[in-house]
Amino acid sequence: MNENDEDTSPVRALSDEECWDLLRENEFGRMAYHLAGEVHIVPINYATDGERLYFKTAEGSKLLGIVMNEDVAFEIDRITEDHATSVCLRGRASLLEGSEEHVVEQLPLRPWVPTMKFNVVAIDPAEMAGRSFHLKRPWLRMTTSSED
Amino acid sequence: MNENDEDTSPVRALSDEECWDLLRENEFGRMAYHLAGEVHIVPINYATDGERLYFKTAEGSKLLGIVMNEDVAFEIDRITEDHATSVCLRGRASLLEGSEEHVVEQLPLRPWVPTMKFNVVAIDPAEMAGRSFHLKRPWLRMTTSSED
Repeated sequence: MNENDEDTSPVRALSDEECWDLLRENEFGRMAYHLAGEVHIVPINYATDGERLYFKTAEGSKLLGIVMNEDVAFEIDRITEDHATSVCLRGRASLLEGSEEHVVEQLPLRPWVPTMKFNVVAIDPAEMAGRSFHLKRPWLRMTTSSED
Repeated sequence: MNENDEDTSPVRALSDEECWDLLRENEFGRMAYHLAGEVHIVPINYATDGERLYFKTAEGSKLLGIVMNEDVAFEIDRITEDHATSVCLRGRASLLEGSEEHVVEQLPLRPWVPTMKFNVVAIDPAEMAGRSFHLKRPWLRMTTSSED
């Protein structure tokens, strides 16, 4: 049995192009970052421009963490009844300054929550892995199959 | 303006009890872990028992990472049209051995994908933060309000 056989394997690796398509279609993901030797995770609202991700943040542990250690990971996913798709990437986060900050004015970086967030952070992915899992979740159909 | 006023603030902190209720209702989250000084993030299918989270994993970077550094973070979220709710926790991951592994046989730790996963990992949360955001996303209603 060949695990790379896409016709029979429940897991399919996505191409970089498919990963970027998913990153562009979404606007909500989760970022993992270092803070004082610990790993932290936080949901973020983001936008893409070319092969860069952007988000806004207020002062806080998230900003402190990436200023002290630029190494971050980021994930998006989508689950339907029969597929779970995820894109996980790792890269470098940087706080934009001066004219660079204005890049985001052209982006659909729409704040879901109207709180003030002044800092603009960019994530440059260095490595990326996307996977699509064909789900076997028979319990979702239990109500219709219980008569059998 | 009082930021803690739940009637006017768009962000509400969840109690630990509310966080646990959400953790028990869900079965899909994302874990962040250390690996050779880097931060990684991966989607996982989990179950809870008491105040512990469990998941199964094959040999790989995820397992190697937590065996070398038990410090992990974990996140779940749920987005509806007008609310985004998330639970972020940090804690210690440990690979179960011997009779401890059998704990999961009693749990609804249902594999979505029928690949063999032999190792059972427990996460013991040490700190947890849940938040519910009231979303302002007027663009979702643009199609109905564009006539105004």
